[in-house]
Amino acid sequence: MAKNPLINPHVAATLRQSPTRKIDTLREKLTREGKDVILLSTGQPGIPPVRQLREAVAKLLEEESMKYYGYTPSNGIAALREAIAEDIRGLGGPELDPDQIIVTAGGQHAMFSALASILEPGTEVILTDPTYFGYEPLINYFGARPVYVETRLEEEYQPSPEAVAEKISERTRAIILVTPDNPTGRLVHSHVAKALAELAQDHGIWLLVDEAYKTLIYEGSHVWPYKHAPENVVGINTFSKDPGFPGWRLGYIYGPPRLIGPARLVAEEAVYCPPSIAQYAALIYIREGLRKHYLAKVIPEYMKRRDTMAEALRKHLPQARFLKAKGSMFMLVDLKEYLEPAGLDAEQFSKKLLEEKLVATIPGTYFGQTPRYSVRLSFATETPQRIYEAIRRMGELLEKL
Amino acid sequence: MAKNPLINPHVAATLRQSPTRKIDTLREKLTREGKDVILLSTGQPGIPPVRQLREAVAKLLEEESMKYYGYTPSNGIAALREAIAEDIRGLGGPELDPDQIIVTAGGQHAMFSALASILEPGTEVILTDPTYFGYEPLINYFGARPVYVETRLEEEYQPSPEAVAEKISERTRAIILVTPDNPTGRLVHSHVAKALAELAQDHGIWLLVDEAYKTLIYEGSHVWPYKHAPENVVGINTFSKDPGFPGWRLGYIYGPPRLIGPARLVAEEAVYCPPSIAQYAALIYIREGLRKHYLAKVIPEYMKRRDTMAEALRKHLPQARFLKAKGSMFMLVDLKEYLEPAGLDAEQFSKKLLEEKLVATIPGTYFGQTPRYSVRLSFATETPQRIYEAIRRMGELLEKL
Repeated sequence: MAKNPLINPHVAATLRQSPTRKIDTLREKLTREGKDVILLSTGQPGIPPVRQLREAVAKLLEEESMKYYGYTPSNGIAALREAIAEDIRGLGGPELDPDQIIVTAGGQHAMFSALASILEPGTEVILTDPTYFGYEPLINYFGARPVYVETRLEEEYQPSPEAVAEKISERTRAIILVTPDNPTGRLVHSHVAKALAELAQDHGIWLLVDEAYKTLIYEGSHVWPYKHAPENVVGINTFSKDPGFPGWRLGYIYGPPRLIGPARLVAEEAVYCPPSIAQYAALIYIREGLRKHYLAKVIPEYMKRRDTMAEALRKHLPQARFLKAKGSMFMLVDLKEYLEPAGLDAEQFSKKLLEEKLVATIPGTYFGQTPRYSVRLSFATETPQRIYEAIRRMGELLEKL
Repeated sequence: MAKNPLINPHVAATLRQSPTRKIDTLREKLTREGKDVILLSTGQPGIPPVRQLREAVAKLLEEESMKYYGYTPSNGIAALREAIAEDIRGLGGPELDPDQIIVTAGGQHAMFSALASILEPGTEVILTDPTYFGYEPLINYFGARPVYVETRLEEEYQPSPEAVAEKISERTRAIILVTPDNPTGRLVHSHVAKALAELAQDHGIWLLVDEAYKTLIYEGSHVWPYKHAPENVVGINTFSKDPGFPGWRLGYIYGPPRLIGPARLVAEEAVYCPPSIAQYAALIYIREGLRKHYLAKVIPEYMKRRDTMAEALRKHLPQARFLKAKGSMFMLVDLKEYLEPAGLDAEQFSKKLLEEKLVATIPGTYFGQTPRYSVRLSFATETPQRIYEAIRRMGELLEKL
């Protein structure tokens, strides 16, 4: 008699599809029905890679050789690791040896490989609340436990080093810091970055810094915690937001050899090598100085969209509370004054807003316990006109409630 | 005082870089010294994707939109999963629902995701000896143990279902079968495939079939064990060998929903989504019927190379024993008659051959306990002339020993 083969129950117990896929499914259904949905939900750029880059990649494809199609070293081609080291230096970051860099198949693959190398069952990771929702399932999958430290709008979402210190125990293996932040758009202050790096050093734990949005900054500048504790700090990076090819899957990790060795082994085991064509594209992007062209398009445009969003919020939702994003693509907008009296949480509101007003947002509840009445709004994808219209509709719906 | 942050010792205890990287490092050093190395070591195609495909992809890059750059669903774009289902049917394979397919970031990512979903600490996986060296570290990483069943040249490397049955215990979770085989070039016989599928069904275990080389066949045809036990068999596939873009990282898993659900979660957690541009390229490749152009180039050329290799072996190494590959890119050549008297194992010989005769091969010892005196030779990369010359040099070296 046939018997069912067994699976590992730990996978389903700890992992789940990205929560944004729920919104995506509903949004796709509405789109198929011919509805025009305004997208404030996506975490990807609204502007594709610059023409010069696309043309240069197309040119590579003319060559009749395996060069651009073959496997690469599992940590990426040497020329790209050298270019990344120079790029980081040029951005005001630390001096790195190219061997301290592992090129990965995107930022998610970078996080996966880094956390797999650090975490063991029974360990803990300190995160801010709110934070990017991608971390908790990974931490659980590796048998560890997330421990949250609240950050508050009133304090510009700066994590308090004292509050972090209180959560450190014998079980703590790492602190994760996202800056520029998803979902709040804050940049961490330099004294906070320094204090967190020193905490990591003093306690013999890791500080993982997710720097996905480090070049998407509208006010202020990126801080580099690595400089304060190079044996303890790891940078998690991506080419998804700039040059703008998230689907091509390219990112990198930098850090001390102690972490780079095992993280490379995990990265290789999970994917063998990062995608070759994306690597050659990134190499051209850095070496030909194409970022200045991309950012010259993207930064003023994203700023205009962000400003329109803030202005519309002040006009149509005067009781909404938010930090006007200093970096990244997002604002986290607290609608407590509207939703609490109406007896709705953010997830219910987000669904209603999509169904009734055709505006897609991500409920704050996906980012932690604290943003119970907040929604994350992306200003990267839609035009200022459509962003304004979306906020107007949010106001309309909230008035009705 | 600064303390070193901790890492997970299980990573370094179970994973190691692909053993072929050792040969690669030595080979790269020789190449940098200006030496012309004949490459019989690589596991990747010697012929790049066809011009029609490269031109079609270049064309996509002209479009000024995020379409080809954005994230895709974590299991791949729906159009590609539909195309793959039709493609498998067209190749004589099973009828599949597109939802039974997960597109992955390459064959390694497919194996990783499938094994992560199946294995738990203390379980076991049955493999042939010899087999592809990529499985053992993954099995160990997931806390399971490989159990080997010898296959023999005298029996054309067919696994014996009786011998497999003897190794099945309460701890067995899966059998892994590679066909067409790496490193031996054998195709599994259809009665063996059926017997193994039925064993899996009877014992409630999985049969994972690595079908990476399913379209690279010179004699005979691919068998589809899935048809015999669709609740127990999983196909592991890649676009690396055909259409020939291993570095672009695209593959897929097909199987029953029981496995597809968790494997998708793991695949998403490790990489988020498969590379978008590779997905669109594969879609064009299947939909435009470009495989017939690629195989029309590749099959006669690989056959010529294989035939030259076999002929040169018979002439210059008359005591070498091997199966003339029926599929894949490889032959496993047993040099026991030469090496045992000389007191050399395959790893020592392989190194000597590279250093003294500039011929790169992979020692059989990387594939199991049994091929102690064998080397794996790839006939995919070099021209017939250079393959002949490489074998001549092997003969020269062996004569000297």
